[in-house]
Amino acid sequence: GVALELLKRAGAKPGDRIRITRSDGRVFEGILMPRYALSAKPIIVVKLDNGYNVGLRVDEKTVVEVVKTRETILKEAAAGAPAAIPLLEETPPEERRPRITILGTGGTIASKVEYETGAVRPAFSAEEILEAVPEVGFIADISARVVMNILSENMRPRLWEKIVDEVAKAIEEGADGVIVAHGTDTMAYTASALAFAFRKLPVPIAFVGAQRSSDRPSSDAAFNLIAATLVAAKAPFAEVVVVMHGETGDTYALAHRATRVRKMHTSRRDAFQTINGRPLAKIYPFERRIELIDEPLRSRGAEELEVANGFEEKVALVKYYPGMEPEIIDFLVDRGYRGIVLEGTGLGHVGEWLVESIRRAVEAGVTVVMTSQTLFGRVNMNVYTTGRKLLQAGVIPAEDMLPEVAFVKLSWILARTSDPGEARRLFAMNLAGEITSRHTVDLYPR
Amino acid sequence: GVALELLKRAGAKPGDRIRITRSDGRVFEGILMPRYALSAKPIIVVKLDNGYNVGLRVDEKTVVEVVKTRETILKEAAAGAPAAIPLLEETPPEERRPRITILGTGGTIASKVEYETGAVRPAFSAEEILEAVPEVGFIADISARVVMNILSENMRPRLWEKIVDEVAKAIEEGADGVIVAHGTDTMAYTASALAFAFRKLPVPIAFVGAQRSSDRPSSDAAFNLIAATLVAAKAPFAEVVVVMHGETGDTYALAHRATRVRKMHTSRRDAFQTINGRPLAKIYPFERRIELIDEPLRSRGAEELEVANGFEEKVALVKYYPGMEPEIIDFLVDRGYRGIVLEGTGLGHVGEWLVESIRRAVEAGVTVVMTSQTLFGRVNMNVYTTGRKLLQAGVIPAEDMLPEVAFVKLSWILARTSDPGEARRLFAMNLAGEITSRHTVDLYPR
Ligand SMILES: N[C@@H](CC(=O)O)C(=O)O
Ligand SMILES: N[C@@H](CC(=O)O)C(=O)O
Repeated sequence: GVALELLKRAGAKPGDRIRITRSDGRVFEGILMPRYALSAKPIIVVKLDNGYNVGLRVDEKTVVEVVKTRETILKEAAAGAPAAIPLLEETPPEERRPRITILGTGGTIASKVEYETGAVRPAFSAEEILEAVPEVGFIADISARVVMNILSENMRPRLWEKIVDEVAKAIEEGADGVIVAHGTDTMAYTASALAFAFRKLPVPIAFVGAQRSSDRPSSDAAFNLIAATLVAAKAPFAEVVVVMHGETGDTYALAHRATRVRKMHTSRRDAFQTINGRPLAKIYPFERRIELIDEPLRSRGAEELEVANGFEEKVALVKYYPGMEPEIIDFLVDRGYRGIVLEGTGLGHVGEWLVESIRRAVEAGVTVVMTSQTLFGRVNMNVYTTGRKLLQAGVIPAEDMLPEVAFVKLSWILARTSDPGEARRLFAMNLAGEITSRHTVDLYPR
Repeated sequence: GVALELLKRAGAKPGDRIRITRSDGRVFEGILMPRYALSAKPIIVVKLDNGYNVGLRVDEKTVVEVVKTRETILKEAAAGAPAAIPLLEETPPEERRPRITILGTGGTIASKVEYETGAVRPAFSAEEILEAVPEVGFIADISARVVMNILSENMRPRLWEKIVDEVAKAIEEGADGVIVAHGTDTMAYTASALAFAFRKLPVPIAFVGAQRSSDRPSSDAAFNLIAATLVAAKAPFAEVVVVMHGETGDTYALAHRATRVRKMHTSRRDAFQTINGRPLAKIYPFERRIELIDEPLRSRGAEELEVANGFEEKVALVKYYPGMEPEIIDFLVDRGYRGIVLEGTGLGHVGEWLVESIRRAVEAGVTVVMTSQTLFGRVNMNVYTTGRKLLQAGVIPAEDMLPEVAFVKLSWILARTSDPGEARRLFAMNLAGEITSRHTVDLYPR
C-alpha cells in the first residue's frame, strides 16, 4: 500500500521522529508507531507530542521525512534529553491478540469520531475507529459494526433488546470482550438493562461514550475508548460496566458497575459516578494497567453465556413532588401500565393523599416500587407512618437501588412474569449487584 | 419556683458540678448552667459530660447535691486536670438579646423533641424547646408556635403559603430572625418556596430539621437547632437558608441557600448538600462562630420586608426515562396543568417522540421548562439536534437550576401571571440565587 511505500522511500522505521507533509498542505510531526493492525490501509500512525496517536490518511503526493532516528532519540534520552517514548506499545502479532467487537449505537462517540474532516458521520467502521484512535488496534484485534445510530435520549426498551441480541451474537462468535459505544445521556439505563439481561456472562461488556465530541481538543472520546478496549480485552471480570473518565485529566478512567452508575453532571468528562458503592476498577490506559477497587461479582471465563432478553415498555418512573395529584397514578393504571417506580422523598415517602390510588393500582395488579430522590442511601419504610401505610398498600421498597435501575429492573422482571407475587419475589432479589446490604461511611462524596 | 428552691437549698451555683436524683429514680450529673431564660420553670439545666445541655424537670421530691464546686473545678483545670467548662455561655440578660421566633411545621424535629418521655408529641411550645435544648435560650429570647404538624412528605403549595404568612407575621412583629422547624423530606422545596416569596427580607429565615429523632443518642436535633438559632440571631445575611449538619460529627453545621440545596441521602446527618454552588456559611455553634463561605446576596437589615405570596398548584415535575410516552404530557395538558418542569437527560433532552406533544402543550399556553436529571451542571440545548428541536417547540431551558427549584419557581411565577410570555421572562431571571452564571471546577464532589 501507499503508506508502506512512503515510509520505505523515506527510510523511516518505527520509533523514528518523522514529518508528514500532505497534499492538503497540513504538516504533522511525531514518532512513527508500529502498525500491524493497519498494514493494508493508506494510513500512517504517529504519536504527536501531546501524547496521543493519530492515524493520518496519506496518498501518493504526501511527503514523509525522517527528522530524527530512533537511535538518536534513545541516545539523547540516555544523555538526559526529554525523550518522546511511545506510551503504549503494540501487542506484536506473534502474541495472541484478544478479539474485541465494538458495537456502535450512536451518540457523540460514534458520530464524530473523525479527526480530520470534522464531519458528523453516522458510520462506525473498524477502519474509521482505528484511524481515529490507533491505540485500540495496539491492544486487540478489532471488529466493529453499527447496530443503530441514535442520540441516546432516543433510546428505549425495544432498542435495549436489539443491543442485547447484538452483544450476545458477538460473544457467541468468540469475542473476548464487547464494547458498546453509546450516547452518555441514557447510557446508565441501557448498561443496567444489559446487566439484568445477561444472566451469565463469560466476558466483560464495556459501555463507553464521550462528553465532548472528538473534533474538540478537549475530547474524551479517544481516552475513553482506549480505556474501554483495555477493559474488554484484559479485565479479569465478566460484568457489564461503564468506562468513562475518572477525573478531568487524562490519568485514569473508571469502570463503574452498570447497576450502580449514574450520569451526575451535564458536561464534565468525569460526569459518571458510582452511587452507593465503589467503582469496580481504575483503568490507567497508557500503562495498560487495571487496578481493581471492588470485588468482581463474576470472573472472566467462569460461566457460559446465558441471556434472558425482553423488556416491558408499560413501566413508568414517577418522581414525587409536593402536591402531586393522585390522578397521575390513576391515569397510568387506566392506560394499562404494569409497573410504576415511585421516586419518593427521604426514606421512601409520598404525600398520604396518594396512598388510596396506589392501593387501587396494586389491587389492579400493577407492581409499585419505592425508591428515593435523594439517590444516596437506602429506603426504609418502617420508620414513619407514611412508609408503613405505603407498605400496607402493597408498595415494594427498592432498598438502596437507584430509581433508574429500579425502573430498568422492573421493566425486565415484568417481561419475565405476569404474576405480581413472582414479580415481588424477583424484585427483592439482588440480580446484578443492584442491592448492597451494607454501605461504609466513605461512600458519600461531599 | 421549685427549681430555684432546690438549688438554693443545695448551695449550688452556676458552674458547680451537681447531682440530681429525681423522684422517678433517675440520676443525672453535670455542670449547673445559668438559666435566666427559664427562671420561672421547674427545670434545672445541666451540661452533661457528653457536652450537651439538658433541661431536667424537677419537683419537691428531687434531691440536688453539689459534687464539686466551680472553684475546685477551675483549680483542678489550672493544675492540668481535664476541665468540664461549659462550651456555650448564656448571653446575660443585661445585653440586648435577639428575639427569635421558632415556627413548628412538623417532622422529626418537632414531633419528638422531648428527651425524657420518649413520646411523640405534636406540641412545640417555647418551654418544650428550651427544656430539650436549653442552648437555644442562651443565644436569644425565644417565642415559638405550632403552625401545623405534618410529616413533610405531606407538604404542598397551599401549605407553603401558610408558612410564608406566619414567617411574615413574625418578622412584622419584630423578630430578629425566624426558624422554621420542618421535616427533612421536602424541606428544600419549602425553603425555596420562601426564597421566591420573600422578595425583600430584613432578617434571616433558617429552616432546620433532624434526620434522627431526639430520643436516639445519635440525634442531630439539638445540634441543628442550636446552629439554626445562631444563624437566626446573629448571621450577617438576610436570606432563606437550610441549616443542617455539615459532617457526621458535631463540629459544624452548614447554612445552605434555599435555592441550591438538596437532600442527597436518605439517612445521614449530613444529607443536605449545596448543588452547583457553595454553602453560604459554616456554623460552629458551640463557639458561636459563623464563617461565611460565599458572598451573601442580601445583608441583614438592608431591606424592608416585601412578600409576594401564592403558588400555582397546577404545575407538574416530570422526570424523563427511556421510552416515556407522549400521552403523559397530553394528559397533563388535558387536566389543565399550567406548567410542566421536565427533568430530562444530559444537557436537557427527552426522546424526540415527545416533541410534538410538548409543542402542543406550549401552543395551549402551558409553560414547559427543561432541567437535567444529572442535577450537577447546566442545561445547554444548543449542542444536539434534540435540544434545538425542543427549543423550537418552545421549551425554556432552566440553566443550572435544580429540577425541584425550577418546579417551585414555576409554581410561584404562574401564580403571578397568566401570560406565558411574562412567565418566560420571569423564569429566565435570577430571582433568588437559583441561577449562577459560572461554576468553578471544585463545585463537583467525587
Ligand atoms: N445527547 C448525546 C450525548 C452524548 O453522545 O454523549 C447522547 O446521549 O447520545
Ligand atoms: N419524613 C419526615 C422526616 C423528617 O422529619 O426529617 C419528614 O420529612 O417530615
